[in-house]
Amino acid sequence: MNELDIVEKLQRRAGPGKGITLGIGDDCAIYRPRANEELLFTADQSMEGIHFLPTLPPATIGHNALARSLSDIAAMGGEPRFCLVSLAVPGGRGTKFIDGFYRGLLGLARRTGTALAGGDLAHGDKIYCDVMVCGSAPRGKALRRSGARPGDLLCVSGRLGKPWGGRIQPRLELGRALRGRATSCIDLSDGLALDLHRLGVASGVAAMVDRVPRARGASLDRALHGGEDYELLFTLPSRSSLPAGTTLIGNITEGRAGAVMFQGKPLPARGYDHFAGG
Amino acid sequence: MNELDIVEKLQRRAGPGKGITLGIGDDCAIYRPRANEELLFTADQSMEGIHFLPTLPPATIGHNALARSLSDIAAMGGEPRFCLVSLAVPGGRGTKFIDGFYRGLLGLARRTGTALAGGDLAHGDKIYCDVMVCGSAPRGKALRRSGARPGDLLCVSGRLGKPWGGRIQPRLELGRALRGRATSCIDLSDGLALDLHRLGVASGVAAMVDRVPRARGASLDRALHGGEDYELLFTLPSRSSLPAGTTLIGNITEGRAGAVMFQGKPLPARGYDHFAGG
Repeated sequence: MNELDIVEKLQRRAGPGKGITLGIGDDCAIYRPRANEELLFTADQSMEGIHFLPTLPPATIGHNALARSLSDIAAMGGEPRFCLVSLAVPGGRGTKFIDGFYRGLLGLARRTGTALAGGDLAHGDKIYCDVMVCGSAPRGKALRRSGARPGDLLCVSGRLGKPWGGRIQPRLELGRALRGRATSCIDLSDGLALDLHRLGVASGVAAMVDRVPRARGASLDRALHGGEDYELLFTLPSRSSLPAGTTLIGNITEGRAGAVMFQGKPLPARGYDHFAGG
Repeated sequence: MNELDIVEKLQRRAGPGKGITLGIGDDCAIYRPRANEELLFTADQSMEGIHFLPTLPPATIGHNALARSLSDIAAMGGEPRFCLVSLAVPGGRGTKFIDGFYRGLLGLARRTGTALAGGDLAHGDKIYCDVMVCGSAPRGKALRRSGARPGDLLCVSGRLGKPWGGRIQPRLELGRALRGRATSCIDLSDGLALDLHRLGVASGVAAMVDRVPRARGASLDRALHGGEDYELLFTLPSRSSLPAGTTLIGNITEGRAGAVMFQGKPLPARGYDHFAGG
C-alpha cells in the first residue's frame, strides 16, 4: 500500500464537509467561510511514549488525537468545522495501525461534525501525529481566557484526576452553552493548578479554590496537578446559575495575576508542562 | 525556560497578522474572514533524519518547514495568511534550537506576509515539526490539479534536481500570476515523474514530456525522480505565452489518466513516496 492508495481510501471514508469545496487530494483543501463567522484554529501533537503508550489501541490513539484539539474548540465555545491530520508511522506498523487510527478519529469526527479535509502522511521512527482543527463561532462571541473579573464564580465540568488512557470526551456542548454566559474559559489539559494560573494571568486576576470534584480513586495531588482531564474551567458572573454537570469550586479575586489560593494556602502553578526544567 | 516563557517570547516576535483577531496564547487563534475570500489549508511534516539531517542549521530547518507548506499555497495560486507551528524538540537541544528554528521560520513568514497565529510545543526524542498554513484566494479562483486538458502546454518553473539541504523558495508570486491563466497546477515535492502522474490522474489526462531543465550537476534520474524541488508544474491553454522563469517541457494528451511518456518511452510514476513499499 502506498501513499496514493491510503489517500484514496481516506477520500472515500472522509465524506464531504459543510463548506469544504475541495477536500483531500489536491495541494490544499478549500473552505468557503459563511457570512458573520469567525474561525478558530488550534493544533495539538500526540506522541508515542509521551502522550500515549504504544500498547493503546490505534482507534483510541486516533480518537484522542482529534479529541485534544476539539477540547480547545470547546473551550472557545466553537463548533468544529474540519480538521487536518498529520501522521507519521513506523514502516512495520503501516497499514493496520493507519486503519485503526483513522477508524477512531473518523468516528469522533462524524459525531462532532468535523470533516477530514486533509493532512500529511509520512514514515517515522515512532508514531507521531498533529491534528489541526478549525472551528466556527458567531463574530465576536468566542470565549477567551481573558475575561474573568473579581467576584466571578469559578466552575469546572466533570471530575478531575481521571486515569490516563481512556477516551477523551471534548465538552463541545457545554462550551457552546457557555457562549454569552461565561466571562472566561480554558480547557484543562495540563492540570487545574497550572491552567487556572494561565487563566488568571490572561485575565489579570487571582483566584481562590475551596474544593475540587475528584474522580473515583484520584488523589488530591492528581486532581490539582495531573494533566489530560480535558474538562472546562470557566467563570460566571456572581449569582449565575450553574450549567448541569458542573461544580462551583471557588471565586475570582483581586490580587497578583495568576496567583491561586487553595483552602487558604498558595497553590503552586505546577502541572504537566512539557518544557518545565527543559 | 518553560513553555510559558517560550510562548511569551513568540508572542512578542510574531507580531500581529491581518485578520488575526486573537493570536498566540489562548486555546485557539481567531481569524476573521474577508468578504469573497476562499481559504486554502495545507499541512506538512518535517522530521529529523527523513526531511533533513540533524546537522542542518536550525534556522534553515525552520525556514524549510514553513516553505514546504507555502509551496502548496503557491500551487493553488493563494496568498498566505497565517500558520500554526507544532514542534517537538529533544530536551538537550531546547532553547538554542528553538530560537534558531523560529528565527528562520519567522524571517520567511515576514517576507511572505504569513502571521504566526499559534501551534503546539512539546518534548520529543527527535526534532519533529508540522506546519499548517492558511492561504486565501478570491472565491472560485484557486488553481487545482484537475483542470488540465488534451492540447494544453506543460510547463515547469526553475530547474529540477537541485541538491537537498538548501533553502526552499516557495513560488508564491508565480502561483498568483498563474491564477486565471493556468488550467492546472501542482508543486513538485516528490519529483516530476510522480507529481505529473498525480496531476494526470486528477485531470483524467496523459502527458508527453520532451525535455527537463536540469539544475547544475543534476543527473537526469534525479531531475525526473528526485523530490524536494518545490518548483511549480502547470498547464496552459495552447498558444499561451509562458511566464518568465518557466520552461515548456511537453504537452497534455489524451490517454490513460496519469500515463506519462518521456522522449517516446513510458515514464514510471516513481519518486519520493514515504509509503512506497511500506
